[in-house]
Amino acid sequence: MSRIFEFIDTHQERFTQELFDLLRIPSVSTDSALKQDVRKAAEFLAAKLEDAGMENVQIAETPGHPVVMANYLHAGDDKPTVLIYGHYDVQPPDPLDLWTSPPFEPVEKDGKVYARGASDDKGQAYIHVKALEAWLKSGEKLPVNVKIIIEGEEEIGSPNLVPFLEKHKEDLACDMVLVSDTAMFAKDTPSITYGLRGLAYMEMEVFGPNRDLHSGVYGGALTNPLNALCEIVAQLKDENGVIQIPGFYDDVIDLSEEEREASRKLPFDEEGWKASIGIPSVHGEQGYTTLERKSARPTLDMNGMWGGYQGEGAKTVLPAKAGAKISMRLVPNQHPDKISALFADYIEKIKPEGVTVKVTAHHGGHPAMTPIDFYGLKAAGKAYKDVYGKEPLLAREGGSIPIVADFKNVLGVDTILMGFGLNTDAIHSPNEHFSLEDFHRGIKTSARFLEVLPEFEKS
Amino acid sequence: MSRIFEFIDTHQERFTQELFDLLRIPSVSTDSALKQDVRKAAEFLAAKLEDAGMENVQIAETPGHPVVMANYLHAGDDKPTVLIYGHYDVQPPDPLDLWTSPPFEPVEKDGKVYARGASDDKGQAYIHVKALEAWLKSGEKLPVNVKIIIEGEEEIGSPNLVPFLEKHKEDLACDMVLVSDTAMFAKDTPSITYGLRGLAYMEMEVFGPNRDLHSGVYGGALTNPLNALCEIVAQLKDENGVIQIPGFYDDVIDLSEEEREASRKLPFDEEGWKASIGIPSVHGEQGYTTLERKSARPTLDMNGMWGGYQGEGAKTVLPAKAGAKISMRLVPNQHPDKISALFADYIEKIKPEGVTVKVTAHHGGHPAMTPIDFYGLKAAGKAYKDVYGKEPLLAREGGSIPIVADFKNVLGVDTILMGFGLNTDAIHSPNEHFSLEDFHRGIKTSARFLEVLPEFEKS
Repeated sequence: MSRIFEFIDTHQERFTQELFDLLRIPSVSTDSALKQDVRKAAEFLAAKLEDAGMENVQIAETPGHPVVMANYLHAGDDKPTVLIYGHYDVQPPDPLDLWTSPPFEPVEKDGKVYARGASDDKGQAYIHVKALEAWLKSGEKLPVNVKIIIEGEEEIGSPNLVPFLEKHKEDLACDMVLVSDTAMFAKDTPSITYGLRGLAYMEMEVFGPNRDLHSGVYGGALTNPLNALCEIVAQLKDENGVIQIPGFYDDVIDLSEEEREASRKLPFDEEGWKASIGIPSVHGEQGYTTLERKSARPTLDMNGMWGGYQGEGAKTVLPAKAGAKISMRLVPNQHPDKISALFADYIEKIKPEGVTVKVTAHHGGHPAMTPIDFYGLKAAGKAYKDVYGKEPLLAREGGSIPIVADFKNVLGVDTILMGFGLNTDAIHSPNEHFSLEDFHRGIKTSARFLEVLPEFEKS
Repeated sequence: MSRIFEFIDTHQERFTQELFDLLRIPSVSTDSALKQDVRKAAEFLAAKLEDAGMENVQIAETPGHPVVMANYLHAGDDKPTVLIYGHYDVQPPDPLDLWTSPPFEPVEKDGKVYARGASDDKGQAYIHVKALEAWLKSGEKLPVNVKIIIEGEEEIGSPNLVPFLEKHKEDLACDMVLVSDTAMFAKDTPSITYGLRGLAYMEMEVFGPNRDLHSGVYGGALTNPLNALCEIVAQLKDENGVIQIPGFYDDVIDLSEEEREASRKLPFDEEGWKASIGIPSVHGEQGYTTLERKSARPTLDMNGMWGGYQGEGAKTVLPAKAGAKISMRLVPNQHPDKISALFADYIEKIKPEGVTVKVTAHHGGHPAMTPIDFYGLKAAGKAYKDVYGKEPLLAREGGSIPIVADFKNVLGVDTILMGFGLNTDAIHSPNEHFSLEDFHRGIKTSARFLEVLPEFEKS
């Protein structure tokens, strides 16, 4: 291993500059105006995989953004095969005025790189590209078979990934998937995520009169679609944070006593957490801790809303329509399609008289759990310990990586979530950043994981 | 009178073309980028008043947009003095994509002119400019003293008008104010508005975390400011449309039995009204008719709201803040400042834990009523009858013209609201328009009013 770690140390500065180059590409998958930039990011990664010595590198087309694929299959059929997954697309950077430096002009500050995608997921995905380079260029024999796919549609719900997995099912056959798209529990506190929430993301439009009306001439005699939207939303949760959609909790597997015990042992500083996001008090579902609420319980949050006059000053308008984006995080065994349907039914039932409501489901994702005795998880634990000097914690994560459930469904394998980010990385927010020290340690951890995996398979 | 009406008929086409020129000026008072265009509208009107033969024409500065002033005081001190008021500023034209022709490129279609400000209030204000021209150019002696002011800040709440009236109190001394900024009850159904609602216009901002958060990583453990905003708004009215702000109704003078009788006689086609705005059912305060709800009862409506991601697709963000514009229409004797304070107090009381709320009052306006036995109202009735061939109806109007209360307070006089618009003119909406026939008949009605007023004063 020493030659590999030496290679990583020697090339640290170049690896960082390459990451900066990748971060300069505004690969916002939801913005159709940036389609060519999204492809540019794929081309960049394909070139780097080629340079690293990976084989069968290709930019595989999908009906949307392409998937970068490559493999290196020289360990022998008796050795485990790892499929590494990442995504090169990023969230939109808005609101732009809150960034202290432009989102696609990476800068280093206090040991961190600031840019959209730094942590989610370009920085974390690139860790594995460089770990592979270290193996293949240092002259050591890679003891496992490796396949890699890096997609460009994760931030829009990976609409083409399942068909892609199905189409390439044989090419992608593996013993496990390795993903770095999660956070460590805290700085210098490596963690392995064994549970993820799912997602049902809805859009709701409320229609009132056939045009914007003068609020004086008409006001008082008809249902205002903005007020109606608020009245609907106010009925989605009660004052104890309990979601009121009938049947919503039917399939929820509650936390086991063992899990609640483990959760209580996690070093969570609630006061520090509150201070870090500037809130005076926590709030959530009664009967659960803050950690449980944000990782192991289902939620309902508005992500956006709009209607009427949003400009400067006052406009006395009674608007024709209002809209909102509302998403629900799901836990095992909730099904996104079922939850979406329950949501739509409930809205139709509670909508005020005098308006019509249209509910549309955006992308959804299944929740997922990896068994904590899986040998891949144990190998990951060993790799973390060898690089970070401590055993990783086992935690559930509040975010969604729907593709983890997809890998289970299509490829029949579990996923190792080897996160190197931090929850303070401001992913999806202005001033997203990623620790360059963890970028460096991540490359070593990934490389070490590939080394120790065969031992754990045997044990 | 015949020479004056002849003059009006002869110059009809020129009058219309002049109105089109005025409508081409995008005098949106709330848009600071259009400040020079607002002034251009004032300059246009000053020039036309000069051409008409009015005296002492000036563009009087204020801390905001200027007021156009002129007078013609040759009837003698024993004759009534009428102060004509109008406004040359207009509402913003958005949403632009719903206009079938550009808002500042007036076009004639089916006898109507389509443009922002066609009805509110450029078209109606210009009626009086042309009526004065007809008097002064036809060689007849104007039997009353006339003063005119046309301001440029009505759509932003006339913030500088009261100081202006106070400063020019002697110059503007009069026996009544004449305003055309209201609607007739229906086509060919002239109406005199004797009551107007007031306005309290509020902006509310709800602040949660100190930055936008990832809805998966954080969701479930803190109050979402968008959900909080909806929960607040849902508590502002109950299911019967009754406003829940404590003390809100304390100063409301309920409709008298006589007024309710008169209101029932108005030719209101509720089914046609519903169809015209495309709503399946009316909704409002229980115990009142649709007409009463939209003219003589106080209201609370959202005018705009915003927060989080409003773009294409899905963004899984838990936003840092949300905002809304909420206005209340007031009736005698509600006071806008008192209502604004009650609103702010109630919001502070009901706001959910975990968020802070900032409430700001935009402009307000007092409700107003003119005694129905005032001689000016009777003269206006006669003028309408002579031009339209029928007695005007007496109605209350749901909109606000706060300056009517200001005229009473500062100048001590009542206002005659001689409306020539229609409620279907789409004022404040896309495709605002104004009947050119009523523009023409309006000029005659205004001219006739100035003629018959002295007779009614004596009686």
